[in-house]
Amino acid sequence: MIDPSHLDRLRAIVGQKGLVDDPSLMRSYETGARYDEGKAAFVVRPETTQQVSAVVAYAVAHGIPLIPQSGNTGLVGGSTPDTSGSQGVISFDRLTTPLRIDTDNRTVEVAAGVRLSVLNEALAPHGFFLPVDLGADPMIGGMVATNTGGARFLRYGSMRRQVLGLEVVLPDGEGTILDLASGLRKDNSHVDLKQLFIGTSGVFGIVTRAVLELQRLPQQTATALIVPQDDASVPLLLRYLEERCGEYLTAFEGMSHNAMERALGHVKHLRNPFAHGTIPAYAILVELTRSWAPREGEMELSTFLENVLAQTFEDEPPLLSDALVGRSDDLWAIRHALSEGLRASGYVIAFDLSLPRSDLARFRQEIVGLLGGTFPELAVCDFGHIADGGVHFNLVHPGRPDAAYIARVRDQVLDVVVNRYGGSFSGEHGIGRSNQAFYDRYTPALVQRLSASVRRAVGTMGM
Amino acid sequence: MIDPSHLDRLRAIVGQKGLVDDPSLMRSYETGARYDEGKAAFVVRPETTQQVSAVVAYAVAHGIPLIPQSGNTGLVGGSTPDTSGSQGVISFDRLTTPLRIDTDNRTVEVAAGVRLSVLNEALAPHGFFLPVDLGADPMIGGMVATNTGGARFLRYGSMRRQVLGLEVVLPDGEGTILDLASGLRKDNSHVDLKQLFIGTSGVFGIVTRAVLELQRLPQQTATALIVPQDDASVPLLLRYLEERCGEYLTAFEGMSHNAMERALGHVKHLRNPFAHGTIPAYAILVELTRSWAPREGEMELSTFLENVLAQTFEDEPPLLSDALVGRSDDLWAIRHALSEGLRASGYVIAFDLSLPRSDLARFRQEIVGLLGGTFPELAVCDFGHIADGGVHFNLVHPGRPDAAYIARVRDQVLDVVVNRYGGSFSGEHGIGRSNQAFYDRYTPALVQRLSASVRRAVGTMGM
Repeated sequence: MIDPSHLDRLRAIVGQKGLVDDPSLMRSYETGARYDEGKAAFVVRPETTQQVSAVVAYAVAHGIPLIPQSGNTGLVGGSTPDTSGSQGVISFDRLTTPLRIDTDNRTVEVAAGVRLSVLNEALAPHGFFLPVDLGADPMIGGMVATNTGGARFLRYGSMRRQVLGLEVVLPDGEGTILDLASGLRKDNSHVDLKQLFIGTSGVFGIVTRAVLELQRLPQQTATALIVPQDDASVPLLLRYLEERCGEYLTAFEGMSHNAMERALGHVKHLRNPFAHGTIPAYAILVELTRSWAPREGEMELSTFLENVLAQTFEDEPPLLSDALVGRSDDLWAIRHALSEGLRASGYVIAFDLSLPRSDLARFRQEIVGLLGGTFPELAVCDFGHIADGGVHFNLVHPGRPDAAYIARVRDQVLDVVVNRYGGSFSGEHGIGRSNQAFYDRYTPALVQRLSASVRRAVGTMGM
Repeated sequence: MIDPSHLDRLRAIVGQKGLVDDPSLMRSYETGARYDEGKAAFVVRPETTQQVSAVVAYAVAHGIPLIPQSGNTGLVGGSTPDTSGSQGVISFDRLTTPLRIDTDNRTVEVAAGVRLSVLNEALAPHGFFLPVDLGADPMIGGMVATNTGGARFLRYGSMRRQVLGLEVVLPDGEGTILDLASGLRKDNSHVDLKQLFIGTSGVFGIVTRAVLELQRLPQQTATALIVPQDDASVPLLLRYLEERCGEYLTAFEGMSHNAMERALGHVKHLRNPFAHGTIPAYAILVELTRSWAPREGEMELSTFLENVLAQTFEDEPPLLSDALVGRSDDLWAIRHALSEGLRASGYVIAFDLSLPRSDLARFRQEIVGLLGGTFPELAVCDFGHIADGGVHFNLVHPGRPDAAYIARVRDQVLDVVVNRYGGSFSGEHGIGRSNQAFYDRYTPALVQRLSASVRRAVGTMGM
């Protein structure tokens, strides 16, 4: 139990509304997006950077562990407290100003607690958007802290590419505020320290404000669901599309039969787009976008895509067995329903893997074979951003597997990913409590030592 | 003077050809690309990462300062020794393997000593290129170490965006080799340590090998030289083009009258493209590219650009006073001749500034006014990557100004850039000896302390 005097002191910093210790009100802060539920000593909700600084300084001085929490949409237990009841949550849900759009610079200055959807709604009238796209609706601070990737990474990259500047509170004894939020596109006049705070989950410092580069909101979109002839056709199709519509290509999302079947079977209002309803072994969602509206004399983007796809059928042997050019919303609805479909059909043992994209088909074949031998009850329901080598290699168990079973499955899969393919056990989602053991096991000792050493350098700065 | 026994020991590591101490042979390593010339104690030229490691370990152990040198095309005295004769140069001109192209992954693994031109020649048959484009021909290691930007930053970003993986030798007592060269596109499973070595000029560690993402070589290019109606039209034109051809836009390069006049007047074989040869107050080189070849039924890119530009003349008031769609090589020849034209016309006091792009016109007006009062003999010959806020704000003196004069000019310009506009004194070129005093003066104390602290954390790792 935390000493009540700490709560009084923290309340003095953030005000009455800023401190939550009623168990029923803490519940949502204690519950993560995927199977994780902890117990918080308290939830502190600063409204300003200065309050964040004072809270961090107080917590460091009194040895109170703080878990930074933004939108709490992460999938690795990185934003919720453990079950000890001794950790406090520092939530950014009240840190929502500023949100300042600069149309000439094509940038926005935005507080950590602003949700992606809120930002994009504010940007839309200006013709801009933040192009990091994902199923959930995270907050900007968490997106920076986890270096969010998403479904349009192929075109726009992860958060690291969007961040021009940051304001950060350091985890030192003074809660030092580090202002790196100049927002210049180019600045080689000093070490680019902001990189240290992107993708490090708040461990190196807490992001309170960001300056982000914006992109033009697409004015034309063309989407198709294509069915490759076989596994070997997938990298060829990718190369084909990168050659013939490279500038327009925004998504190349693979979906396995099992994943699509579960989505179409369990998620309401989803239309099966395939002929006779027959779900193929694998399908790829392809999206092209243009920043400008249709113009006279210029081929429409959907026609452009149809032409490019039509050509592939003329190859011998053909790369595609089917291609459906459909309404973008309908096709993306399938892609976005996959996770829900999996959850509705059983217990999901989820993997967020990253491999060289050229190895994906070979890896899939190998691991499906292995799992079929050791865990025949598991259905492989993979999907992912295969142009980037990212694959949500999710396994669905029909029952309720225990922790030891899950651990054995994870060991078998990750051993192949990391040791045989040089892949990553966490392409997008970060470390968190869920992946700590894999970090300890698979991250080279030198990288671990160096990371800890740099972390200490940052955390002791203000002292 | 260096103890000859050190030279013997270094020779034992790198072989006879790997150590240079003949003054006449050291000359090219001692001379930088811009007005800097030092004196080296020796030049050591390792051929492998292991040799780099052994050399670094030996130098650290014996307190011998080493200056890392790649292509030696930098402009801030960062790759040449000072005049003391006590610093050794570690050159990467023999570190030229591997150069391994992976077409399915669209990546290349490349040694630090490979020149950009050599890499791009090897890539061209595969339809790829490394899109960081600049006048000089640097080596890959130096491009990573300085986070090179260049003329197509607007589309492709700086080196940081291209780097998927690095191998680095740490400046510690053991010359520890840090292998971060997995080449995955996404990996949030640990701290992205490679960021520490991008843009830090070898101070945090020496890059020996990189895995880079490649881009499709453009198959169509359309280029125009446009003349804005006035200063206020420039940001409007940029926004106009980003809206109407965002995916294609690869360059938006501003050139002042004075800069163009010097290039056209002093550089041979350059054709004046303007009507009656009248050089306008300001012109912008616009380039569009497409990754695919012209296809039936699709508007050619040059027609596309002509149409977009034609529309701007219909606005009231018009944004443009002239637009010349010309041969790409001819128009880029002018852009690439600017530096030579300036040097041929006097002594160049060069600035590599970065500002918010919306402030460029206001800054230019203000500083031209100020300099006209204090230094009327200077001609302002600016040009730059104005879509990124980068401006090579170069001043040409008709004679040979002394160091005190140059210092006064720099102080006046940089005071305005940094203190009034929140800009950077080095947008692209880095720090080096030339900018050390400005680093000391303008970089916030906290950033300096934190950088030094992280540097110590890296440099003492292996001990």
